[in-house]
Amino acid sequence: MGAAEREAGTPRIVLGPNQYGKAEVRLVRVTRGTARHSLEDLSVTSQLHGDFDAAHTEGNNAHMVATDTQKNTIYAFARDGVGSPEAFLLRLAAHFTGSFDWVTGGRWTAEQYFWNRINGHDHAFSKDKSEVRTAVLLADGARRHLVAGISGLTVLKTTGSEFHGFPRDRYTTLAETTDRILATDVTAKWRYADVDVPDFNAAYVSVRSALLNAFADTHSLALQQSMFQMGRAVLETHPEIAEVRLSLPNNHHFLVDLEPFGLDNPGEVFFAADRPYGLIEAAVLREGTAESDPVWNAVGGFC
Amino acid sequence: MGAAEREAGTPRIVLGPNQYGKAEVRLVRVTRGTARHSLEDLSVTSQLHGDFDAAHTEGNNAHMVATDTQKNTIYAFARDGVGSPEAFLLRLAAHFTGSFDWVTGGRWTAEQYFWNRINGHDHAFSKDKSEVRTAVLLADGARRHLVAGISGLTVLKTTGSEFHGFPRDRYTTLAETTDRILATDVTAKWRYADVDVPDFNAAYVSVRSALLNAFADTHSLALQQSMFQMGRAVLETHPEIAEVRLSLPNNHHFLVDLEPFGLDNPGEVFFAADRPYGLIEAAVLREGTAESDPVWNAVGGFC
Amino acid sequence: MGAAEREAGTPRIVLGPNQYGKAEVRLVRVTRGTARHSLEDLSVTSQLHGDFDAAHTEGNNAHMVATDTQKNTIYAFARDGVGSPEAFLLRLAAHFTGSFDWVTGGRWTAEQYFWNRINGHDHAFSKDKSEVRTAVLLADGARRHLVAGISGLTVLKTTGSEFHGFPRDRYTTLAETTDRILATDVTAKWRYADVDVPDFNAAYVSVRSALLNAFADTHSLALQQSMFQMGRAVLETHPEIAEVRLSLPNNHHFLVDLEPFGLDNPGEVFFAADRPYGLIEAAVLREGTAESDPVWNAVGGFC
Amino acid sequence: MGAAEREAGTPRIVLGPNQYGKAEVRLVRVTRGTARHSLEDLSVTSQLHGDFDAAHTEGNNAHMVATDTQKNTIYAFARDGVGSPEAFLLRLAAHFTGSFDWVTGGRWTAEQYFWNRINGHDHAFSKDKSEVRTAVLLADGARRHLVAGISGLTVLKTTGSEFHGFPRDRYTTLAETTDRILATDVTAKWRYADVDVPDFNAAYVSVRSALLNAFADTHSLALQQSMFQMGRAVLETHPEIAEVRLSLPNNHHFLVDLEPFGLDNPGEVFFAADRPYGLIEAAVLREGTAESDPVWNAVGGFC
Repeated sequence: MGAAEREAGTPRIVLGPNQYGKAEVRLVRVTRGTARHSLEDLSVTSQLHGDFDAAHTEGNNAHMVATDTQKNTIYAFARDGVGSPEAFLLRLAAHFTGSFDWVTGGRWTAEQYFWNRINGHDHAFSKDKSEVRTAVLLADGARRHLVAGISGLTVLKTTGSEFHGFPRDRYTTLAETTDRILATDVTAKWRYADVDVPDFNAAYVSVRSALLNAFADTHSLALQQSMFQMGRAVLETHPEIAEVRLSLPNNHHFLVDLEPFGLDNPGEVFFAADRPYGLIEAAVLREGTAESDPVWNAVGGFC
Repeated sequence: MGAAEREAGTPRIVLGPNQYGKAEVRLVRVTRGTARHSLEDLSVTSQLHGDFDAAHTEGNNAHMVATDTQKNTIYAFARDGVGSPEAFLLRLAAHFTGSFDWVTGGRWTAEQYFWNRINGHDHAFSKDKSEVRTAVLLADGARRHLVAGISGLTVLKTTGSEFHGFPRDRYTTLAETTDRILATDVTAKWRYADVDVPDFNAAYVSVRSALLNAFADTHSLALQQSMFQMGRAVLETHPEIAEVRLSLPNNHHFLVDLEPFGLDNPGEVFFAADRPYGLIEAAVLREGTAESDPVWNAVGGFC
Repeated sequence: MGAAEREAGTPRIVLGPNQYGKAEVRLVRVTRGTARHSLEDLSVTSQLHGDFDAAHTEGNNAHMVATDTQKNTIYAFARDGVGSPEAFLLRLAAHFTGSFDWVTGGRWTAEQYFWNRINGHDHAFSKDKSEVRTAVLLADGARRHLVAGISGLTVLKTTGSEFHGFPRDRYTTLAETTDRILATDVTAKWRYADVDVPDFNAAYVSVRSALLNAFADTHSLALQQSMFQMGRAVLETHPEIAEVRLSLPNNHHFLVDLEPFGLDNPGEVFFAADRPYGLIEAAVLREGTAESDPVWNAVGGFC
Repeated sequence: MGAAEREAGTPRIVLGPNQYGKAEVRLVRVTRGTARHSLEDLSVTSQLHGDFDAAHTEGNNAHMVATDTQKNTIYAFARDGVGSPEAFLLRLAAHFTGSFDWVTGGRWTAEQYFWNRINGHDHAFSKDKSEVRTAVLLADGARRHLVAGISGLTVLKTTGSEFHGFPRDRYTTLAETTDRILATDVTAKWRYADVDVPDFNAAYVSVRSALLNAFADTHSLALQQSMFQMGRAVLETHPEIAEVRLSLPNNHHFLVDLEPFGLDNPGEVFFAADRPYGLIEAAVLREGTAESDPVWNAVGGFC
């Protein structure tokens, strides 16, 4: 079938924004120049933007760089090393936008998984599953939008968290509290003002530390307050970052009522609930930063 | 601590877009007016937009409608019935934006799970896990953006799918094929032009059917072609829908090479791979439709 | 390093029971003799039992039929069709125990996934995710123990379930009820008395139906009672089955207290909880059946 | 309905082994005697064994200690502290078998999750998700069978692993190798000879270390060889442990063929596959240890 048909009196049905590629290419890169090996472990996704209309409307694949080819390219490029997720994605973007006239941009993402040496061993490692490092690169012609991130970093404070002073309406039953457990899984994404960052790996370590310390050190009157302090701590220590977005579930820990059993419970025995959970999300940014940067659309919602 | 500080010579750090609420409120609503019961099973998320700055910058909760209150409201509203996910979210939005001056909008979402009667039984059901129905409502003042959807609908064609004619570069090794398995997990979202839809449940059933039939009946030269036909089929039969977005993994089924074992394999024995997978995404819309509708940002990326 | 060393005064450390193989071989088998194709979709695991001591104690692989070879064999055998998971596993067992002197038995398992035709289409299908069919075959020399099963079949009754008359101790706070929602995910395994079953597929359909109808039709005073009736229904209609084991979570649905909001709740609005959940497990068997059949050890616990 | 009916000429259908209780009770225990808090995070399951026939056959709940009561008991007992998963389960078993005449035993299990202090903070923690500690206690009258374990500990060696010398049959295509990546997720369970272990927490740390070091230090000719050394290392350093069972997937990392792109690949670029995977399982025990201990049936298969 050819292009979309026009029906009398109604607008034509047309192709809108589109992208395609290969997702979750699992890449493990060993660096073994010396007896002391090192290890990079990533899941890489490549999606191209450009003129792919004929494939959609006619099944004409003349412009369709195969997703298998995109996968092969990822592995071939890894032969020269990875370095950092951000640097690797920038190399992929340069290749694809530079190699095919009709590829005008794209969206490349990576997750990185961490491994620790077992007792300092030269070539034996154990996986550190406590967090995942993320990166999203959006290329639009020559422009590059780069968002780095962390996900799945679960943190908890056993005290130093209050919640009171909220409005009470017909549907409010929650009691106020001056001492509760505060727990969340940190998903943070930070947008670099430009892509000329000297050391993405060092930046990641430093941002992670800023997030953790701000969570730990903020006496919290609301999870929103902790969140804002976490974002601010990142921006204050990282001038190269323009904006931070955080998505924080409030992982409720309910104090168990032990009175029916003749026991008190002075903040010691808790039920950790699964669902529902609070969900608190915000951007923290430098005044004057454009809020509508299209990169966030491509990144997907808040985080 | 008070508002964000100004540092000499650098822009202030400020709060950007933000939202908060209760996520994944698991609601089961039984309608039992007669001996023949019916069942609605949902997971509802409520997030508010508005002036919550003081909570972020000062820990002042005077504007913080508790997420627990949002949960209670969901259950209380369910007392009057659910009807459809879309209608239920519209009621929630009207309540929250109408009850608190500083709540200017919000984002409400639902998943609905389906149940079938066991042999037509009056009150015994088995869960149909083959798909999940979704809905996202974005309220911005008096405006309403409504996106309905389906996710996790896995489909497969054993023939009637080709892939050839794609460009070959240094990194291309994929063979052309005129007969392959085509398989995907359909995630589709459709945006209603406005919220005055007479029967959301009937629309869902009809859209689902259009998607399935277009997938089945399209002789596919590319997954993109099947995808475009699926979107077009929805728009052609649903004038109330302005735009469809689809996100389709290409779930690769590789023909197993049985030659080393002295066997042929005429399209009969396949290895179903997990990762990597193709990922094909597009919007299909009526010509002239604004592509930049902010609802897609709130919905999150393509799907 | 050689065999395990003997230390003075302490028993030698030795190898105990062991097995190895390839797990979760994803096999899709298309039957395309006519234009009307059919589809079999399985995940197959093969593990061998026998004399593999030297591999463990010395790294000598002379007996180690490679797990890759086991995978290849699964795909090669699929060239002649699958038929049923049980029949396919029996063929694999015959091959491996018949081909290698030192292979004395093994454990083969399969999961089967179901697909429905899209509107009766010749070669387009949608996946039915509502349940998974399972099979475990344990071979010990010439003996065969065969356990078929179903998992993930979620069922719910909106009424016809009571729970009262339970003992009350210091830690009991639960109220009695004469009307509650009863919901569970059925995992059932049934052991065939021998492997000469004429039609495993027909047996599966019939057992599934017996389980569903017994759940639906039993007025339940305890989930244990429903479970026993489900097992009994299978045995009463299937003389070829010696024993049924069921593992049933009690998926709690808590009536929401709407009184604080001035509303009643006559069994209509429920919170579906995730964790904790009840877990109810039992075997139902014909009197005189040996309870200690080793197959259950290999199958793993109750289900 | 009463007891199971006898049909002429066929054996009665009767209840076999059974157990029931509450699963995955999520317990977080804070110890806050000083400003320096500590944290224990567990998921506890309690299942009772005994005379529950009437509930199954008649719906008579006079013996059914409610699963809700079992949950309450877990929380109440946590008021006095947890200490270790093993010690906590022993207390639960003593209570339930001592409180109800008809409860003759049971099966209690726990998972424990680990948290690290954030920079040595007094009350702020981040979750260490790299492994889960497990415990299973089987009580049968006065007897106690105790199995501790670890799961989800993912390890990898970039070299020091070979695989060759395996038999080649019609279905063998695998190439021999003298240098490959070896990667696995360690699930280990160790059975204590008796329950009088002075410090379960210290034992856990020591066993974990023995497993990691044996994996790292064994030059591996087969994953079976690494596994046996891991089990032996535990037994050699822990006389209180009678038997170790290990279940180790072989997480395949395939060297990517870069030759089509004009590149070599000297052990540097790998594809980390999901499925299928090898699955290697064994018991390692002291000579003379009974292999048929019923605890393994209750624990479930190999691990």
